[in-house]
Amino acid sequence: MRQIVGEAHLSTDETILHNNGHDETEDLVYLPEVVVFPETVTQISQLMRLCNAELIPVTVRGGGSGLAGGALPVEGGLVISTKRMDKILHLDEQNFQVTVEPGMITENLQNTLKDKGLFYPVDPSSKGWSFIGGNVNTNAGGPRAVKYGVVKDHVLNLEVVLPNGDIIWTGANTLKNSTGYNLTQLMVGSEGTLGVVTKIVLKLQPYPTQQLLMLAPFRSPESACAAVAAIFQSGVTPSALEFMERNAIEWAIRYVGETPVPLNDEDQAHLLIEVDGFHLESLYADCETISKVLEQFDCGEIFFADNDAQKTALWKLRRNAPQAVKNNSIYKEEDTVVPRAELPRLLRKVKETGEKYGFESVCYGHAGDGNLHVNILKGTLSDAVWHDELPKGIREIFEFVKSVGGTISGEHGIGLVQKSYLDIVFSPVEMELQRGIKRLFDPNGILNPGKVV
Amino acid sequence: MRQIVGEAHLSTDETILHNNGHDETEDLVYLPEVVVFPETVTQISQLMRLCNAELIPVTVRGGGSGLAGGALPVEGGLVISTKRMDKILHLDEQNFQVTVEPGMITENLQNTLKDKGLFYPVDPSSKGWSFIGGNVNTNAGGPRAVKYGVVKDHVLNLEVVLPNGDIIWTGANTLKNSTGYNLTQLMVGSEGTLGVVTKIVLKLQPYPTQQLLMLAPFRSPESACAAVAAIFQSGVTPSALEFMERNAIEWAIRYVGETPVPLNDEDQAHLLIEVDGFHLESLYADCETISKVLEQFDCGEIFFADNDAQKTALWKLRRNAPQAVKNNSIYKEEDTVVPRAELPRLLRKVKETGEKYGFESVCYGHAGDGNLHVNILKGTLSDAVWHDELPKGIREIFEFVKSVGGTISGEHGIGLVQKSYLDIVFSPVEMELQRGIKRLFDPNGILNPGKVV
Repeated sequence: MRQIVGEAHLSTDETILHNNGHDETEDLVYLPEVVVFPETVTQISQLMRLCNAELIPVTVRGGGSGLAGGALPVEGGLVISTKRMDKILHLDEQNFQVTVEPGMITENLQNTLKDKGLFYPVDPSSKGWSFIGGNVNTNAGGPRAVKYGVVKDHVLNLEVVLPNGDIIWTGANTLKNSTGYNLTQLMVGSEGTLGVVTKIVLKLQPYPTQQLLMLAPFRSPESACAAVAAIFQSGVTPSALEFMERNAIEWAIRYVGETPVPLNDEDQAHLLIEVDGFHLESLYADCETISKVLEQFDCGEIFFADNDAQKTALWKLRRNAPQAVKNNSIYKEEDTVVPRAELPRLLRKVKETGEKYGFESVCYGHAGDGNLHVNILKGTLSDAVWHDELPKGIREIFEFVKSVGGTISGEHGIGLVQKSYLDIVFSPVEMELQRGIKRLFDPNGILNPGKVV
Repeated sequence: MRQIVGEAHLSTDETILHNNGHDETEDLVYLPEVVVFPETVTQISQLMRLCNAELIPVTVRGGGSGLAGGALPVEGGLVISTKRMDKILHLDEQNFQVTVEPGMITENLQNTLKDKGLFYPVDPSSKGWSFIGGNVNTNAGGPRAVKYGVVKDHVLNLEVVLPNGDIIWTGANTLKNSTGYNLTQLMVGSEGTLGVVTKIVLKLQPYPTQQLLMLAPFRSPESACAAVAAIFQSGVTPSALEFMERNAIEWAIRYVGETPVPLNDEDQAHLLIEVDGFHLESLYADCETISKVLEQFDCGEIFFADNDAQKTALWKLRRNAPQAVKNNSIYKEEDTVVPRAELPRLLRKVKETGEKYGFESVCYGHAGDGNLHVNILKGTLSDAVWHDELPKGIREIFEFVKSVGGTISGEHGIGLVQKSYLDIVFSPVEMELQRGIKRLFDPNGILNPGKVV
């Protein structure tokens, strides 16, 4: 391996092993034996060929912001960090396409594009430190998915190193493609278990020149959730439609130390609603339509962000909700997703399950997509209850989610920590098909072992 | 089989075998031995179980509008027609979702949805007779794909009968899903080779209340193509951006017997451009922006469709171009797709290849997507040249397409007639992965044998 990546780009240093042995999933740490920092696809191909021959487990790592343990090297072995592969290889402004390496931080990519008037809309909360390669591997979402879709809707083509070292392209650099089976979409969201993504071709669009942002308080979380489906039925598609329970916004206010809006006693939940586009007049009309809908759902006084500073402050609250929770208690985050009109029932189910098992929860998320992040707090629960009883409660929530047409991960992935719940959403036949795909790509099971299937 | 579907829904009648033995691909006919018309997923499951045990080839058939021979029963055996499975099973207006059977005609589905203010945007030219199941299997596109995407961007979940008779669902009824490998996207565009799609869950959106349509003539086809990329760079995303060579529009005018616009001698190509949305004022602004762009590309006088009758007449011309060509000569239609800024070069390559091999061509297509339908006319070519020489010319065009980042089918699929060109776009390793997926789903190779891989 030393010969492949060079002396300076291989490490067995304990701190480095530790840094590459955890992500943002709970407090889990698994140490690899070696970490390498390759710079080219050829190096990755050579590494994979070697590891495949020697049956060395390989885990590929991006920014380490994962919430399902997808990048944890649970069987030790080699970690391939993509951090040195962080360049834009080709910005094709004529065709609205960019070819980028997996190790680029998503927000850096977005900022570079924005300077050219181009827009890559997918903005997970972790965009400031997660890598675009990791985003591809989890099929990441974020607030704007409600209008612009998730990663899978923006990836045109991928260069991938297969576990045996072979290098393939999964598709073509075109907006349409009906040529064979869709390997691109098979790779997106595969959590690094099928191949190593080494180049990513994304489609871009013009950067919307106008955004309007509003924050609406509700007397009950359920009426906030109920308003969500009604907004879409009014004909408006917001570019973000985020839900926060009272404690989420309260904790976030405390965490960031700023109070951009007064929080009234009766405000039990908020919707953060953004519309974007190119014509300000139409956006004002959209906001008016939305306001009329909200009034029907026991909504308090709506706050319109008047300037960029206010917008930034509101987004900061929402984006820091996860960190605020993390700062408050040991917790588990569940990434439930349902058809959006089922949100009120999902929220009720979460709270009922909490009462039954004795846990508190903080819920927020991308309500427009029906994607609710359920943060279950350890609080004063005993370790025994936390480890042995809680999974039963989570199972009950997930079974409810499945029963209304939803599933157990909207954007975080299955990784390590959700594996044991897969039987809820997949039949044995479906599970066996998933395993068959894994075997086809990675017959020796060396790539990200112990994950997903 | 008789017991499974009932006496009345099985046929060996010669006319029925013939009707189910061809689609819209050239003049190809392959007769099956039996045609069945099942009504339920259980019946299809039983049929597949039987055929898998007895190794009987099975080809599933939709509306028969295919242009790549994907539904031709080349090995005889059983044809399963989905025409009796033509119902909307559940229209979920709250969640903007519809669950539909595969045998529903796409336009019927769209009209039913439109009455409720809901929009399923994918509108292949064949929408009046193609089935939604066939659209799913070819990953169909059509004019609106440029703004709204192709079928794959609208399918949330599929019920599928596997070749062995097992029934699975591929995903969840959610807008986001990061739970395991994406079997939904693997099935979309798989041309009936991996499983039988029996239920389709589509996401919907509000029906845009406003459309504006304009037709712009150009002195050269290449300047028309060059204008396409420039329109997007202006920041406007049209809901359709169609290209027609002069002979395409001329033949279509003759074929439909209507002349909605005067055709001047110097008009060598046209762009048909639509914008849609909810705010008429913004659409007028978009049209103004587009007009300014077009002026820079030697554009003639732009015709704005003032009323619905004019809009219908213009769309009728574009939609009838394929039939007009068909009516004129034996032909082959190639479904090339490239990054859209490469369109002028692609068009030049087609014409140069035509001069080299002595064929005429009529080109039109979804220029906004870079998807150019190249119709190669037999005209006065001898059978020998048509069968032996022409494939070399097509190969040259496809090799060019690949060299600029494109591929050989944008929306028609590979089916039977494009199989021999797959080596141009797939490396041996990529091809072997594709074959591996086929083997995983259909180890006995009974489902739509002889297609794609």
